[in-house]
Amino acid sequence: MSRTRVHNFSISLDGFGTGEGLSLEQPFGHAGHRLHEWMIATRFGAPIMGRNDGTSGVDNSFAQQHEPGIGAEIMGAGKFGPPGWQDDPDWRGWWGSNPPFHTPTIVLTHRPRPPIEMEGGTTFHFVEASPADALAAAREYANGRDIRIGGGPTVVRDFLAAGLVDHLHLVQVPIVLGRGVRVWEGLEGLEADYDVEVVSAPSGVTHLTFERRLL
Amino acid sequence: MSRTRVHNFSISLDGFGTGEGLSLEQPFGHAGHRLHEWMIATRFGAPIMGRNDGTSGVDNSFAQQHEPGIGAEIMGAGKFGPPGWQDDPDWRGWWGSNPPFHTPTIVLTHRPRPPIEMEGGTTFHFVEASPADALAAAREYANGRDIRIGGGPTVVRDFLAAGLVDHLHLVQVPIVLGRGVRVWEGLEGLEADYDVEVVSAPSGVTHLTFERRLL
Repeated sequence: MSRTRVHNFSISLDGFGTGEGLSLEQPFGHAGHRLHEWMIATRFGAPIMGRNDGTSGVDNSFAQQHEPGIGAEIMGAGKFGPPGWQDDPDWRGWWGSNPPFHTPTIVLTHRPRPPIEMEGGTTFHFVEASPADALAAAREYANGRDIRIGGGPTVVRDFLAAGLVDHLHLVQVPIVLGRGVRVWEGLEGLEADYDVEVVSAPSGVTHLTFERRLL
Repeated sequence: MSRTRVHNFSISLDGFGTGEGLSLEQPFGHAGHRLHEWMIATRFGAPIMGRNDGTSGVDNSFAQQHEPGIGAEIMGAGKFGPPGWQDDPDWRGWWGSNPPFHTPTIVLTHRPRPPIEMEGGTTFHFVEASPADALAAAREYANGRDIRIGGGPTVVRDFLAAGLVDHLHLVQVPIVLGRGVRVWEGLEGLEADYDVEVVSAPSGVTHLTFERRLL
């Protein structure tokens, strides 16, 4: 059965998945890169910065789970570009000509546009849909493989609230962001449906995995 | 130098230090005892439930730090009793005749009353004061020993915001409470003044220690 998975989703101690004041220059707002330094330090993440070194311990082991078995991604409009990207007909995402998704990728937006086929297997499909309908569309694309819910925080929260996430991997970074978009809002009692495992890493981050209980 | 310390302060994943709907029957509101089960399971905490067993690993090692070197505690009105205790002249706290403080204990309240001397060394002093003034008073009582900031979440937050906490030990319990009193509010960038260490325990909780950096 195709599962829905969230991977490498970083949050601050106070539960913010991104900062305030997102822009082209500051994709994560005042959070800067602090939520993602842990990942860039791994073998998985180092190529993002054009390096080929990186750590190979617990952070990397988690980070590597991002790819295997995924047949499609669903992301929010806020992940695809800075505020206002919908007004720019040439915007093709942050990731250059070969984005790191390599599968059909649904971008949830209130202003759909024609699909964009990129190099490396990524095709962006722009869809206005509820979480359940977006998931149904993604399953069509995924051919039996799993669906990654790619964020940002609002999309992760919406899919959690709709009961549509089977595996949730959060990475808690020991900073207090103070403002931004909270991932936990409206999820009281979430743990009741999941087996939760928590492990702190030598890097200072803490990995939380929520695995949906079989009924 | 006398230091200010917070110990065994439990929070939910979403940062709530207590639930909603506090009452005589439900001291922690809808959170029930879920924030403190980890502590009751330790050798330190077992006597609270009239037992003398309990675990002796990492949770217990942290929990035991609550007592040594402490000369006074400061707590908020919300810790001393249920909402409205100020209207009951006979209210002497939740803890029976021999409270587990064994030192002078300042209760911050807008309605001071005469001190109450309990068994076992605890004397409750009811004081209306700013965090800094309450701390100055506590240092008088503490005779060079450390001051424990006992909570609840509002008091911990107020002392953190005032820069008056030297050692902060939080225990993150893997539940999403959804509502209650948040400890992180208004503390953006707190980590800049502290060395932070995080360790997850086999029980499922995660211990976070903030140790103030020497300037």
